[in-house]
Amino acid sequence: MPVIVQKFGGSSVADASRIHLAARRAVRALLGGNQVVLVVSAMGGTTDKLVELAAQVSRRPAKREMDMLLATGEQVSIALMAMAIHEAGYEAVSLTGAQVGLVTDSTHTRARIQSIDTPRLQRVLAQGKIVIVAGFQGVDRDFNITTLGRGGSDTTAVALAAALQARACEIHTDVDGIYTADPRLVPQARKLDAISYDEMLEMAALGAGVMHARAIELGKKYGVPIHVRGSSSDNPGTMIMNETPGMEGVVVRGATLKRDITRVTLAGLPNEPGVTAAVFEAVAEHGILVDDIMQTLADGGEKVTLGFTVEGRETGETRAVAELVARRFNVDNPDIAADLARISVVGVGMRSHAGVAARMFNALAAEKIKIENIATSEIVISVLVPADDGERALQVVHQAFELDQTK
Amino acid sequence: MPVIVQKFGGSSVADASRIHLAARRAVRALLGGNQVVLVVSAMGGTTDKLVELAAQVSRRPAKREMDMLLATGEQVSIALMAMAIHEAGYEAVSLTGAQVGLVTDSTHTRARIQSIDTPRLQRVLAQGKIVIVAGFQGVDRDFNITTLGRGGSDTTAVALAAALQARACEIHTDVDGIYTADPRLVPQARKLDAISYDEMLEMAALGAGVMHARAIELGKKYGVPIHVRGSSSDNPGTMIMNETPGMEGVVVRGATLKRDITRVTLAGLPNEPGVTAAVFEAVAEHGILVDDIMQTLADGGEKVTLGFTVEGRETGETRAVAELVARRFNVDNPDIAADLARISVVGVGMRSHAGVAARMFNALAAEKIKIENIATSEIVISVLVPADDGERALQVVHQAFELDQTK
Repeated sequence: MPVIVQKFGGSSVADASRIHLAARRAVRALLGGNQVVLVVSAMGGTTDKLVELAAQVSRRPAKREMDMLLATGEQVSIALMAMAIHEAGYEAVSLTGAQVGLVTDSTHTRARIQSIDTPRLQRVLAQGKIVIVAGFQGVDRDFNITTLGRGGSDTTAVALAAALQARACEIHTDVDGIYTADPRLVPQARKLDAISYDEMLEMAALGAGVMHARAIELGKKYGVPIHVRGSSSDNPGTMIMNETPGMEGVVVRGATLKRDITRVTLAGLPNEPGVTAAVFEAVAEHGILVDDIMQTLADGGEKVTLGFTVEGRETGETRAVAELVARRFNVDNPDIAADLARISVVGVGMRSHAGVAARMFNALAAEKIKIENIATSEIVISVLVPADDGERALQVVHQAFELDQTK
Repeated sequence: MPVIVQKFGGSSVADASRIHLAARRAVRALLGGNQVVLVVSAMGGTTDKLVELAAQVSRRPAKREMDMLLATGEQVSIALMAMAIHEAGYEAVSLTGAQVGLVTDSTHTRARIQSIDTPRLQRVLAQGKIVIVAGFQGVDRDFNITTLGRGGSDTTAVALAAALQARACEIHTDVDGIYTADPRLVPQARKLDAISYDEMLEMAALGAGVMHARAIELGKKYGVPIHVRGSSSDNPGTMIMNETPGMEGVVVRGATLKRDITRVTLAGLPNEPGVTAAVFEAVAEHGILVDDIMQTLADGGEKVTLGFTVEGRETGETRAVAELVARRFNVDNPDIAADLARISVVGVGMRSHAGVAARMFNALAAEKIKIENIATSEIVISVLVPADDGERALQVVHQAFELDQTK
C-alpha cells in the first residue's frame, strides 16, 4: 500500500479547530487507500514561549537543555493530533523523534539526521493506524534529545518519506503552492504545477521561503516528490520533483526579489594567491554571511577589483571589516553601496537556451532600470538594481519571460 | 559518596526565581559532599493547561495520548532546572523518565514502576554532575510514555532513592514538615522530628495530605528515609523512617480531622454468608469508595447491623444504592447520617500501651462531644462526631495526649 507523508506546520496546528482540519485531511488520505504518516510542528507561538521561559532562567542556556525544552512543543502537538484523529473515529498513534528511531549526530540545536529506524513505524502503519511523528526532533546515539534547527519539521517529513519510500511528501502550509513570483508583488504571478529540486533550491535561497533548502536537498538526494500545498484547501499545489525533459521547454520557471542588499567593493587588491581567501576569512570570522562574489581584473592583470554582497543589517560590521582589510593590503577604503535589491530568474531550461541574459537586460533597460551588478550560475541570472526600482524590475522581468502564461 | 535525592513539587518550580532557589539548594547538597539527584514536577498550573488543551480537542482523550501530552510538563521543568544550575556555575544534566530507564507497566495515566536502569544515572553522578529527572513519568516495555498518576513525582523520587541506595529522599514542599495536627486547626500543633512509615501512611490516608500514600509505601518497602521539609527554609523538617524503639515511648504521634463524612446504616440484614459481600459489591459497582466499615450483631445473632462511611459528595448515589440493597434483602430503608467528622489518633506506641481509647473517649465526654461511631486498627483509633464539633474535638484530643509537648 502506498505511503503518504503529510507535514503540518505551526500555523496549521495553532488551535483545536485547525488540528481537527488537519486530522480530517489525514483521514481522507487514509480512506484514499494510503498508509499515512503525519509530521507536525509545535503549535504556533509555542516555541517562542519556551524560548522566553529559558531566557528568564538563563542568559545563555546550554544547547542540550534548549533541545530538551523545545522538543516538548512538538510532543504536545502529536498528542493533540492523535486525539483529534481518534475523535474522528480512526486509529492513530503519536511518536516522538526518539520513539520513531530518528537518530542524529550530537550537534544540539542543529543536528543532522543519521538514520531512521523504520520497523516500529511500518508495524503500526500495517495495522491501518495513522502515525503522527513529532517533527524537528531526534536523539543522538547516547539517547540525548536533539533538534534539527531551522526547517526541521520539513526535514523530518522528507527524511521519513525517503525512509518509507513514500509516494509523496505533502507540505501543508499557508500558501497554496510555489508561484512564478511573489503574488503580493506581482499580481500576474501564476502557481506552478511542478518545479525541479534545483530550481526550488535557488528559489528558496533567493527568498521565496516556503520551504527550507535543507529539506529540498534531502528530497533531491532521495528522489522524494514534495507536494507543497495549502492546508485549508483541496486544490493541488506545486510538485517539487526531479527534472523532466518537458521542464526544459520553459526557459525561466520563476523570478524572485530580495531586498536590502549591500554591495562592498575593494579596488586595487594585489592579484596574488591567497588575497581573496584572506578577505573572506576576515569576513567569516565576524560571522557575516556573504551572498554573491564578483571579481574582475584591473591594471592589466596586476590588480583585482573584488565585490561581494551582504544583507543590509550586516552593513556596519562589514564596513569595519572591509576597512581593516583595505588597510592591511594598503588600498583605498572600500566602496559601500547599500540599499540595493536583487532580481533573479531561475530555470533549468537556461542550460539549453541562449539569450536569456540579454532578454532580461533588454527588458530592464527599456524601463530605464540601472543594473548595478550581474551574477550568474547554471540556472540563475541575478542582477542588482537600486532598491527603489526592485518591485518594478521584478514585474518587468516577470512580463519579459511571459511567466503569467502557462507553457 | 552518599547520594541525596531532592524532589521539588510544582509550586517550588512555578517561576524562574523559585527554580533558581531550588537550584541553589541542590548545589548546597552537592557542596556538602553528596551526589545529587533532583526530581521535579511540572511548573505549577502547567498540567491544568495541558488538560484544558486536550479537552478542547477531544471529549474523551485516549490515555496513551494524555500521557504523551502531560509528560511534556515535567520535561520543560527539568530543562529549565538544568539551565538554572548551569547559571549557578555547576554541571547538570536533565533526563526524562525514558532516559533514566524508569520502566513501568502499560497502565497509562496510573502506571506502576517495574524497574529503574541506574547505570546511566550513576555514570553521570560519578562525573560530579547534578542529575535532574522528570518526575511522574516513565516508559513501558514498548517504549510508550506512561505517567504514574497522583503523587507520581513523590513516587519517582522515592523509587530513585531506593534504586541508588540514597542516604535520604528529601521532599521539598509548601509545608516545613509533618505536624501533630493541622496547625490551621490546632494552633498548639508541633512539628515532628520523626514519624514511622506506618504512622505516616495512616496520617496521609486520614487527610494530612503532604505526601501520597503510594510513595510512603515504597519508602517503607525499601527502607528509604524520607525527609519532608519546606522548600523556602533551611530548617530540618520531619523524617519519615523505620520505627525505632524510642518511637514506642510516644503513645500518640498525631491527630487528624476529616470532615464531610456520611454514615450509612443498614439494620436487620440476615446474618448469612455473602450478604456483606453483596452490599459492598453493589457499592463498588457504582465507583463509590468506602472508608470505615462497622458491623454488629442483632436479634441474638440472627441479624446484623451494617454501617459504613463514605465521603459527603457521594451521599446521593450511596443512598440510592443502599436503598436498592435494602429492597433486595427486604429490610428497612437505610439510615443516612450526613455531616459527620472523623477524629483519629495515630501512633505505633498504641501497640504496647493500654488505655489509649479510654483516654480519648473520656476527653471527648468531658467536653460533651457525642461519639457517633468508633473504629480502630492496630495504630489508629477513630471516632465519628457531629461535623460542628469536629474542630473542637481535634483540639481536645490533641490536648488530651499532650501532643504540643516534646517527648
